[in-house]
Amino acid sequence: MAACTVYTTQSLNTNCSFPTPSKAHLGFHQKQVLLYRSRTSSRSSSSRPWVITCAAGDSQTVVIGLAADSGCGKSTFMRRLTSVFGGTAEPPKGGNPDSNTLISDTTTVICLDDYHSLDRTGRKEKGVTALDPRANNFDLMYEQVKAIKEGIAVEKPIYNHVTGLLDAPELIKPPKILVIEGLHPMFDPRVRELLDFSIYLDISNEVKFAWKIQRDMAERGHSLESIKASIEARKPDFDAYIDPQKQYADAVIEVLPTQLIPDDNEGKILRVRLIQKEGVKHFSPVYLFDDGSTISWIPCGRKLTCSYPGIKFFYGPETYFGNEVSVVEMDGQFDRLDELIYVESHLSNLSTKFYGEVTQQMLKHADFPGSSNGTGLFQTIVGLKIRDLFEQIVASRAQTPVKSAKA
Amino acid sequence: MAACTVYTTQSLNTNCSFPTPSKAHLGFHQKQVLLYRSRTSSRSSSSRPWVITCAAGDSQTVVIGLAADSGCGKSTFMRRLTSVFGGTAEPPKGGNPDSNTLISDTTTVICLDDYHSLDRTGRKEKGVTALDPRANNFDLMYEQVKAIKEGIAVEKPIYNHVTGLLDAPELIKPPKILVIEGLHPMFDPRVRELLDFSIYLDISNEVKFAWKIQRDMAERGHSLESIKASIEARKPDFDAYIDPQKQYADAVIEVLPTQLIPDDNEGKILRVRLIQKEGVKHFSPVYLFDDGSTISWIPCGRKLTCSYPGIKFFYGPETYFGNEVSVVEMDGQFDRLDELIYVESHLSNLSTKFYGEVTQQMLKHADFPGSSNGTGLFQTIVGLKIRDLFEQIVASRAQTPVKSAKA
Repeated sequence: MAACTVYTTQSLNTNCSFPTPSKAHLGFHQKQVLLYRSRTSSRSSSSRPWVITCAAGDSQTVVIGLAADSGCGKSTFMRRLTSVFGGTAEPPKGGNPDSNTLISDTTTVICLDDYHSLDRTGRKEKGVTALDPRANNFDLMYEQVKAIKEGIAVEKPIYNHVTGLLDAPELIKPPKILVIEGLHPMFDPRVRELLDFSIYLDISNEVKFAWKIQRDMAERGHSLESIKASIEARKPDFDAYIDPQKQYADAVIEVLPTQLIPDDNEGKILRVRLIQKEGVKHFSPVYLFDDGSTISWIPCGRKLTCSYPGIKFFYGPETYFGNEVSVVEMDGQFDRLDELIYVESHLSNLSTKFYGEVTQQMLKHADFPGSSNGTGLFQTIVGLKIRDLFEQIVASRAQTPVKSAKA
Repeated sequence: MAACTVYTTQSLNTNCSFPTPSKAHLGFHQKQVLLYRSRTSSRSSSSRPWVITCAAGDSQTVVIGLAADSGCGKSTFMRRLTSVFGGTAEPPKGGNPDSNTLISDTTTVICLDDYHSLDRTGRKEKGVTALDPRANNFDLMYEQVKAIKEGIAVEKPIYNHVTGLLDAPELIKPPKILVIEGLHPMFDPRVRELLDFSIYLDISNEVKFAWKIQRDMAERGHSLESIKASIEARKPDFDAYIDPQKQYADAVIEVLPTQLIPDDNEGKILRVRLIQKEGVKHFSPVYLFDDGSTISWIPCGRKLTCSYPGIKFFYGPETYFGNEVSVVEMDGQFDRLDELIYVESHLSNLSTKFYGEVTQQMLKHADFPGSSNGTGLFQTIVGLKIRDLFEQIVASRAQTPVKSAKA
């Protein structure tokens, strides 16, 4: 629709560096980064025209950051999120089958592992983990997210999780919503600044351990000792580089062991907390019964019968890393649909478009992990809040002149 | 309005006994009991016509029982109750100045101490306390409450709390609502059966003790030892005859020490529980947020700022002496009006006639004891529930034929 202006990387930001490491050294098959920009840009054209296509008019991309450790449910979350927008997220058509990108009508989800500057061999050689910032190219991450946000398509590298190598880049056109998910979306202050909303999936060590035991010991035959050792080995870098990002998140989904069963360490029944930062533009936290007060609620009773150990909700204001937050917590799990709709009917500020939308979304993806507990519930709710945030941003950009009520 | 039928005590109930003890023996100045009955009675007239006046047409009196120990706030409760009905409760005009009765437009409150069969001297001689059933005439209590309920005026004895003697009886005409308050309204099964609604004020031993210390030690100069001794002396009879009545109450107001201050024994800040029996005709229990589930609520937060130690509410289903009950609990006290209206706005099934009626009633009697805590709040709420119960009973008696909606 919009005509295009031609310009080069260099004209966009003179502070940028675009490393083009040799394959021999890093296994990094990176081409020159291509940037595409719509006509609305005020920047002048450059002497190095690389333009191939154009962004979708002047609607700026809304950028969402999702941080979490590997294997913590980011992809499930993304499937829930794109479902809220009505589309199905799929890998780019005709591209690298090992692409980490998911594209739906409105949303593009890119995996920040694609910004690894060191591949598996490279990390091994240098003795750094993927969690280490030195294994990641934050300059490129910043440049490309910034470009997409400004309506410019980019050629993003691909980290191949199967081979552990960096594959040839893929074209990412500016979507309505860009989700950057991975280990470090809020690590670099420049990238952080680009985020319209940020989420941190915080799985407690106890639950991580229980999940790993379940998967690696029961399903893959690893020993308890080796599982413990792998968690311990990962911990220092995780604590140094990943965990501190949660202080910047607008929403944190915290996954803890249940408190309904004393000394439970099975990790099957979870206590999940949705920590929502107050004062975030276009984001009005969900609450239970009474905004701003402190409430605990056991919905199981005369109207709702739950099986052992039941369900317990909590809501209240708290302080989280010095920020005022509102917390909604769910301990326990749903047995049936009526429990979910009952709970939904008592939550406020859900940003649903019709009564029961949360329940409908949860039912639609009943086979996704976490559908019977707070992880699925809060992922779905955060999805609705992001849709609402997106719509508010779009509406605020429209800037309709206010008409006088009087003739 | 209604013409009157003449009959005698004996024609009413042949099982009755009407003791007429001598003044010398018991100080009991009791005349023959006079019973008045409206025309609607199906009973035949008797050979001993004692009729003086008639009851108010065929509207049966609604009878409420209120049980509590002496000095536990029954009279405050009664003033709150009559205020809900719009009138002011006053002693009978031109009668014994030491009458224990309070009469308003709609309500007559009689004190069951008037049914003492033994006066102070008599109790001392026989070595029984006023709590002992042997010091009380349950046959007469039953006969007279039954008569009033059926629209028949009675001549009720008066126990003079000043002199400790039994004075000449006073005429009690059948009111719209009769409240029988005292030590034993639910003790006798026959009397209990006559009650349309019953309330037990249950002051815990810790609070009773703190109150007594406050009053008897600080204000009257009694020693701690003598206070302890008087409580201990009273306890066996209280536990044997008064306390067991709470199992029959439709509503119990339980007054306990606060849990907001660890190890508090001042008795100034109270945790008050309103225990409401389920399945009582014309009585729909008050609830907080969600009927039938379990909730704790600290209203103090972003919208409402409370001073230390704050206010905490609880609501949930429980079992009380084998009965299903709904409990609303308030711990702490109100500092200001806005706290009260805020709380009122979150309680449901209050049976108010307009928004803020509970707060209005509480403000009207801000000088009554307990106005800043759960005792005043729940007394007011029970008053509203009794008004609602009364109106439902009256409406159900009217038995208006149901009109078809279609012509």
